[in-house]
Amino acid sequence: MTQVYNFSAGPAMIPQAVLQQAQQELMNWNNLGVSVMEVSHRGKPFIDLAEQSDKDLRALYGIPDNYSILFLQGGAKGQFSAIPMNLTKKGKALYLTSGHWSKMAAAEGRKYTQVTEVDILDPQSEKTAVTELDFENVAEQYDYVHYCPNETISGVEIFDVPKVGNGVLVADMSSTILSRQIDISKFGVIYAGAQKNLGPSGITIVIIRNDLISIAMSNTPQVWDYAVQQKADSMINTPPTFAWYLCSLVFKHLLALGGVGEVEKQNIAKAQKLYDFIDQSKLFSNVVSPQNRSRMNVTFVTGNPELDTKFVAEALENNLQALKGHKVLGGMRASIYNAMPMEGIDALIGFMKEFEERYS
Amino acid sequence: MTQVYNFSAGPAMIPQAVLQQAQQELMNWNNLGVSVMEVSHRGKPFIDLAEQSDKDLRALYGIPDNYSILFLQGGAKGQFSAIPMNLTKKGKALYLTSGHWSKMAAAEGRKYTQVTEVDILDPQSEKTAVTELDFENVAEQYDYVHYCPNETISGVEIFDVPKVGNGVLVADMSSTILSRQIDISKFGVIYAGAQKNLGPSGITIVIIRNDLISIAMSNTPQVWDYAVQQKADSMINTPPTFAWYLCSLVFKHLLALGGVGEVEKQNIAKAQKLYDFIDQSKLFSNVVSPQNRSRMNVTFVTGNPELDTKFVAEALENNLQALKGHKVLGGMRASIYNAMPMEGIDALIGFMKEFEERYS
Repeated sequence: MTQVYNFSAGPAMIPQAVLQQAQQELMNWNNLGVSVMEVSHRGKPFIDLAEQSDKDLRALYGIPDNYSILFLQGGAKGQFSAIPMNLTKKGKALYLTSGHWSKMAAAEGRKYTQVTEVDILDPQSEKTAVTELDFENVAEQYDYVHYCPNETISGVEIFDVPKVGNGVLVADMSSTILSRQIDISKFGVIYAGAQKNLGPSGITIVIIRNDLISIAMSNTPQVWDYAVQQKADSMINTPPTFAWYLCSLVFKHLLALGGVGEVEKQNIAKAQKLYDFIDQSKLFSNVVSPQNRSRMNVTFVTGNPELDTKFVAEALENNLQALKGHKVLGGMRASIYNAMPMEGIDALIGFMKEFEERYS
Repeated sequence: MTQVYNFSAGPAMIPQAVLQQAQQELMNWNNLGVSVMEVSHRGKPFIDLAEQSDKDLRALYGIPDNYSILFLQGGAKGQFSAIPMNLTKKGKALYLTSGHWSKMAAAEGRKYTQVTEVDILDPQSEKTAVTELDFENVAEQYDYVHYCPNETISGVEIFDVPKVGNGVLVADMSSTILSRQIDISKFGVIYAGAQKNLGPSGITIVIIRNDLISIAMSNTPQVWDYAVQQKADSMINTPPTFAWYLCSLVFKHLLALGGVGEVEKQNIAKAQKLYDFIDQSKLFSNVVSPQNRSRMNVTFVTGNPELDTKFVAEALENNLQALKGHKVLGGMRASIYNAMPMEGIDALIGFMKEFEERYS
């Protein structure tokens, strides 16, 4: 079979070794003679899987004991609603916005609480950059301060953790989780859709400091009530068992690779190689300041929309899939999550070079 | 490999042919060189799958053109919240309760609307039976009349559709969908978690008459707003693509078997054989009236809880899995959804006979 590299922003690539194991045991999991999809979530084999996945994610990400991990449904967009429904007490929240997704979160938040929105993109910078994020003096006025450390559409990543003092920091880490090391203790809540770095779409992970789990708004759907789900080990109803199983395999895979520290090194090397090529290119360019360039989503343009379209089409013919930029921005986007190997970066750079020679 | 029969109430068995196809193409779907889990839900291959699954489910179940099909997340329990959030206008709803699940739906409904609960189990009957369901004169006072046609815990099934005149009938069909023919036009909304007859857990199907899709309560989470999801073809955010794909394979599998009419015949034959055995047994008994015996969940007891425990344990040793009754009721439960072959029924009856000879 021809080697294909899939630069989809999500659902994204899944490690080959994980897919191979899933394929091999799809009809006979755990020597039970049935698929993991067919077993009760209340039976011992699946409960064991769930408990082990909690342990493995804690080990991988350094999650302290005073945090709970929930495995929910509804995607990060579901959490845009669940976060204010569960955390609102004072009735005010601060949303730091840096692009499409953080703005969407703020818009959904307005249904439930009084939202103050602060644009953290630096208007002074020639390239897209994020301002200094010091909210230490104001954060405590709010129930929480929300931000999105990686904007997948523009390819902007925020590496510095906003300062919130004794405030509660909430982060949509759908495109950040397990891609680099994080000091979890700086966060009140971290949530992430799985379909970038964790597994398939259809499962959402919430990491929450236990003291923040309390009484939700009265209209909170039971399946998104953190207190209810924590008490029920995320099984107030049937969880998405196959997606959970695949996440559990990804956790084991990353532990075997050496953990998030090792994965982060690889991600730095992959992104650096691609940005270095773009920066010396006469045809391709990237508009994000080096300190905010995403390691997960590398955006680039030729400056000519027709040529961009041609690039995406010809790349596909060369087995480099899903390089089209998001519709709101155009251009190209190479999403290079954990599961993208360096060979994929090399293949992309090789094709970009060849394309540049032909068209510049 | 030893033949195993899995009587789990959900996640339940998936047709072997579907699992085989999923296994075979797990790493190379649609000749794309990648897994179906790894492709963008916005790309043509997945959009084609989604559109075809809509067509196939319409064909299978006779869904009229004035109904929409939504593929959502959160399970039936998620819909316990979404139904009142989307349908409340007058501020009153009628819940017909016949067991655990219909009562849970009513309890969640109370968060959002004024709930009137009517117990439809017949107090006069010696065995568990459902009363006549004529609500034609009162239904229009309410935004909707909700019921659950199959109570999985007690094994009670309601075959007659409640009469609601011009009222709006809403049904939790998690354990009924595609198991027998239904006149969809009698219903306003049908919803179902997938993990019984449709596919794996993690995807929820909502079939809704288009005129009922209107402005939801202001605090409705965007991902559960029917109007928003209908407009977005159920892709307001990343859907659970692998679960959706498996449902699409199940639809094609059922069409190839001859459709729901043929499946219903098989389900009647399977259930009848098991109930007939139980009714003549000196050891095992079932407490549901014949007209309300579930074709999907056959409950039975020996009358001796210790012997029940022994039965479940010995059955497991004989590769008959997950026969333990729900914890709230005890005893045994054989869930025999669409994917359970007649051979599984025969194996169970064979073991029950042998057990009866030893212990009665």
